[in-house]
Amino acid sequence: MTAGAQAVAFAPASVGNVAVGFDVLGYSAPVAGDRVRAARSAARGVRIAAITGVVSDLPVDFERNTAGMAVAALIEALDLDFGFELSIEKGIPLGSGLGGSAASAVAAVFAANALVDEPVDNLQLLKFAMQGEMVASGTAHIDNIAPSLFGGLVLSVGIDNPHIKQIPVPDIVRSVLVRPHRVLETRGARAILGRTVPLSDVVWQQANLAGFVAGCFTGDLPLIAASLEDVMIEPQRKGLIPGFQKVKDAAMSRGALGCSISGAGPTMFAWAEEGKSEGVRAAMVDAFRAEGITCDAWITKIEPIGASIVSDR
Amino acid sequence: MTAGAQAVAFAPASVGNVAVGFDVLGYSAPVAGDRVRAARSAARGVRIAAITGVVSDLPVDFERNTAGMAVAALIEALDLDFGFELSIEKGIPLGSGLGGSAASAVAAVFAANALVDEPVDNLQLLKFAMQGEMVASGTAHIDNIAPSLFGGLVLSVGIDNPHIKQIPVPDIVRSVLVRPHRVLETRGARAILGRTVPLSDVVWQQANLAGFVAGCFTGDLPLIAASLEDVMIEPQRKGLIPGFQKVKDAAMSRGALGCSISGAGPTMFAWAEEGKSEGVRAAMVDAFRAEGITCDAWITKIEPIGASIVSDR
Repeated sequence: MTAGAQAVAFAPASVGNVAVGFDVLGYSAPVAGDRVRAARSAARGVRIAAITGVVSDLPVDFERNTAGMAVAALIEALDLDFGFELSIEKGIPLGSGLGGSAASAVAAVFAANALVDEPVDNLQLLKFAMQGEMVASGTAHIDNIAPSLFGGLVLSVGIDNPHIKQIPVPDIVRSVLVRPHRVLETRGARAILGRTVPLSDVVWQQANLAGFVAGCFTGDLPLIAASLEDVMIEPQRKGLIPGFQKVKDAAMSRGALGCSISGAGPTMFAWAEEGKSEGVRAAMVDAFRAEGITCDAWITKIEPIGASIVSDR
Repeated sequence: MTAGAQAVAFAPASVGNVAVGFDVLGYSAPVAGDRVRAARSAARGVRIAAITGVVSDLPVDFERNTAGMAVAALIEALDLDFGFELSIEKGIPLGSGLGGSAASAVAAVFAANALVDEPVDNLQLLKFAMQGEMVASGTAHIDNIAPSLFGGLVLSVGIDNPHIKQIPVPDIVRSVLVRPHRVLETRGARAILGRTVPLSDVVWQQANLAGFVAGCFTGDLPLIAASLEDVMIEPQRKGLIPGFQKVKDAAMSRGALGCSISGAGPTMFAWAEEGKSEGVRAAMVDAFRAEGITCDAWITKIEPIGASIVSDR
């Protein structure tokens, strides 16, 4: 390939933490996503040509941009003698708890990888995207990056050489996502967290996480319902989301399997059987509305569909 | 059935915690076990007729005996108008980290249940055994009781109405158990634990637990090896076991998938592929011996075989 060759990649939004897997579990949510067009340039390095879409005030200085730094990591690791020009089209609002920063980094490395002579695998791309987020924002959200890249419900074990495991979600389960039209800074939502956890809460949360994973592998909905409960992080963060308890109560009263915060919020997610998902969605939206908050809401399946090339032009 | 009817139940030893599932994960280890003979008596209540075997200085006062209190819980819950006389044959040394207290409680309720007119299921028996251990010893070790009762690798979610999940162990995996001839009091090993855990350690341990469970469901040995590591409890307890680090290093150098403390110790367990298990066992025994400590050692499969009736006489 030569200078000027182009590829466009799409990376979906994602739900981090999934209540019981703080920083290690996430799932792809194709309700929105970021697109990145990469074009090969003769000069080594990264230039950000444009940022458009629902967010446009992001830094175009590539060193402060997760997509830019992710591609810079790719260039360095693969020792390329050329570079990339990136055009980022944001489909995910910032500060929504839907993994927008991760999606930009994932789409960028996915597009760039389509333009190198010897493309690498997703596990390599994962590391580049993590490096990009880490350098640009100070924190790498592997629980967003991994599902946005691989798709589906994804567990990440380890940091330096992570193992990635896609966990099957029972076919009848739907994800309900409700995004209130408020912004919550991830950094702030992280800063309020206690630095230690009572051992008794750890035991409870561990049982829930293991139960949730085992429930998914065996299609055991009663076990999923019993274990999809965050006793560790949610109690600390729920006060940041106006109406949280009423929205959660509304979801549970309509038969949701569980309901908690997507990533650092304020988007909330619920899991529900297909037949109950519309009722859960409506109840959550109504509960936010009763607080004077409008929102977007979606119902999706959780399928192992991650980042993809959507155009080679 | 009438007064005098008898049944004998066997409940296997068990490995609690399994490195990554403190208080919630355990597996049955049929290297030893407790037997309890129950006989129906006309009088309501429990009498302990005999305690024999490798431990004989246990309290025969039923209120201070886990087996006695477990059967008392069964009598009360089922509102029986008769009672039981129990003869306990201990096959599991106390303070070994092999779930001896749990096995006695399990065998006792299992035997008694065989003598009631409407036997209840294992989930009910689990609660009686837990009540017995709780009242008699102050702590109910569900991570020992559940595997001793149900068999195999067992996850327990919840306390009051626990969900029990048997997790498949890859066919090629063997459990290596090495019991040094030392006694460690569970109560003391619990008292040294910090009451809080750093959040960063919780995240790491959670990833390991979820990775371990997912690895077992998918037969993913590299993932099991990457995740079978206790970063939370083992660092606090390993100093209680003379030679711990050398024994662990010996196991890992011979290709073990992981090696940690069984329950509160001092028994140590390792997981290894069948072909490496004998080398791991020998290396662990040698490492203990180099510290001047003799031990028993076993290699077993981890199969879903729990408590059973071994004789109705």
